[in-house]
Amino acid sequence: MAIKYELIKECRQSGARLGLLHTPHGTIETPVFMPVGTQATVKAMTPEELKEIHAQIILSNTYHLYLRPGHQLVEKAGGLHKFMNWDRAILTDSGGFQVFSLGDLRKISEEGVEFRSHLDGSKHFISPEKAIEIENALGADIIMAFDECAPYPADRTYVKNSLERTTRWAKRCKEAHKKPDQQALFGIIQGGMYRDLREQSAKEITALDFPGYAVGGLSVGEPKPLMYEILEYTTPLMPKDRPRYLMGVGSPDCLIEGVIRGIDMFDCVLPTRIARNGTAMTSFGKVVIKNAQYAEDFAPLDPNCGCNTCRNYSKAYLRHLYKAQEILSARLVTYHNLYFLLNLMKNIRDAIKADRLLDYRKEFFEKYGYEV
Amino acid sequence: MAIKYELIKECRQSGARLGLLHTPHGTIETPVFMPVGTQATVKAMTPEELKEIHAQIILSNTYHLYLRPGHQLVEKAGGLHKFMNWDRAILTDSGGFQVFSLGDLRKISEEGVEFRSHLDGSKHFISPEKAIEIENALGADIIMAFDECAPYPADRTYVKNSLERTTRWAKRCKEAHKKPDQQALFGIIQGGMYRDLREQSAKEITALDFPGYAVGGLSVGEPKPLMYEILEYTTPLMPKDRPRYLMGVGSPDCLIEGVIRGIDMFDCVLPTRIARNGTAMTSFGKVVIKNAQYAEDFAPLDPNCGCNTCRNYSKAYLRHLYKAQEILSARLVTYHNLYFLLNLMKNIRDAIKADRLLDYRKEFFEKYGYEV
Repeated sequence: MAIKYELIKECRQSGARLGLLHTPHGTIETPVFMPVGTQATVKAMTPEELKEIHAQIILSNTYHLYLRPGHQLVEKAGGLHKFMNWDRAILTDSGGFQVFSLGDLRKISEEGVEFRSHLDGSKHFISPEKAIEIENALGADIIMAFDECAPYPADRTYVKNSLERTTRWAKRCKEAHKKPDQQALFGIIQGGMYRDLREQSAKEITALDFPGYAVGGLSVGEPKPLMYEILEYTTPLMPKDRPRYLMGVGSPDCLIEGVIRGIDMFDCVLPTRIARNGTAMTSFGKVVIKNAQYAEDFAPLDPNCGCNTCRNYSKAYLRHLYKAQEILSARLVTYHNLYFLLNLMKNIRDAIKADRLLDYRKEFFEKYGYEV
Repeated sequence: MAIKYELIKECRQSGARLGLLHTPHGTIETPVFMPVGTQATVKAMTPEELKEIHAQIILSNTYHLYLRPGHQLVEKAGGLHKFMNWDRAILTDSGGFQVFSLGDLRKISEEGVEFRSHLDGSKHFISPEKAIEIENALGADIIMAFDECAPYPADRTYVKNSLERTTRWAKRCKEAHKKPDQQALFGIIQGGMYRDLREQSAKEITALDFPGYAVGGLSVGEPKPLMYEILEYTTPLMPKDRPRYLMGVGSPDCLIEGVIRGIDMFDCVLPTRIARNGTAMTSFGKVVIKNAQYAEDFAPLDPNCGCNTCRNYSKAYLRHLYKAQEILSARLVTYHNLYFLLNLMKNIRDAIKADRLLDYRKEFFEKYGYEV
């Protein structure tokens, strides 16, 4: 087995899980947030900086790397870790989400998905076997099964057919997986917003005995309370001795609520993407740095933050950099946002240790302002 | 006096000068290359990184900072050093070069230059007094007089009138300068490509007794041998006990040739600008990273280079980042190019110490390939 999940304790106040995830590239303290490095780089950051802010694992995107520079090239480079100079853990998605997001540019069949590249319009076909072949070549520590993430809203029949195909594809992924000793293949539970379909999917996917499981198909436009409700009945269906990954979720409130509902792993482009648009996450909520109110604000983004950006730069300077379209703007705000989220995860782990995660949630939201 | 230049020695082989330039923000070993931080940031770099690669002084642009965020705002922030978190020396130009580059957008009179902002078309007027007022507010260690950099080619009469006005403006700058104890005002020698006019300008400007002098109006499109010839007869007209600054020059060959002709200071956007276009300076000449030949080249940009980029990343990865338009591309290549030039300056200083700068030039050019 490539990885091993060790459940350290459950929070007596909230039931949240504290764990260790042992991987071929180090042990990860969970719950963990994974910064996204779509094209073999977490946008605007170096691997050194990711280590400075204690990133333990990053996510990279199979669809993008398959198209450019190509998985064979990455394999020739010695794998993704070596190619991008990151010696800690990596998780790759399967490309499914990106391919399905292409809308009119893709066609689904039982065999797989035919699609046109968003880069040059060239035609491609990804099947479960092909996705795993690509992920095997990239060489991440954790790889995801090729699934369909159903849109929201979607009718019951569509979702049922989709989840059942996802199960068949999950089996094919497992069979195609060439390196189970080096790369852990996670199964993905789908089922849309239907309780019985989530239960069906959880049952079918967990029966395949993967070393870890994800909850997919959430954070796709549904209201947050609905997501929380689905997590509440889905995570109890997932084995306690395997890591649980909620895909595509990364707002501070959802991280806290997800952990409380038994999730161990998260990823999202949110912190890095909004940073490039000049929006910072702070303990008081979002700061939109281009706003005129910060023109002569010589205080840091967040006086409670210990990151390099907050220790060294004022909002007035960050606003200037943003308006002048300087690269340093994206750098400094990205650094801050990731630091903020990784520090939030540390605070969450500490609160679980102290059996006070519900108290911590209350304290956090009082300052932050709840966003449902 | 804000600064003091200390001539340590002259190279017995080349006549090049080794010196120390004492400023309110540290002592600079000369000859020195100054990375350009146009908008209060050296594009794609942090101040920390500039220190890592031993940048001793950076240049920032008065024209840009006057327009955005405004010199009063920078002054309120505590000056440019504090605003941008750079505690080493800074030099600001006067804005003259940028304003004159605006072409149809500017109108020159004896009083100063009226121009329209390249940002929003708003009308502005910069006189020698106004330029110094802005530079005083920004608070750089070295500030430049407001001059006219004549175009190339330009006829004798134009250049003569222009240099004489530059002298009158230099006097006005000196009179307007409010902080001679904290900021050293440099005079600028003009005179285009005419030997007698260079001599006239050098005589007039040095008579005003500035703490340092620049050679302006070169590297404006003239052939490099012409620039070298002009330097050969101009630098001997400059006082030995003051620093000599060749404005706007930063290609490796011109740096070496400039030092040999008695120059102590240089600045140029070249290393940072070409980096963002994916071109690296190496000991073997330029590497255009997007070229297909590097697609599977897993060696560093320059095997002789000890920078972070060369120690950690391959040309194949840099090419991928460039083609994927990732910010990290600009970061890593900028870092390398500045490291390369600053390291070149260190090698030049070492060669002067060892009285072997002509030998070093030969060795360097044999590998690099001379570009005249």
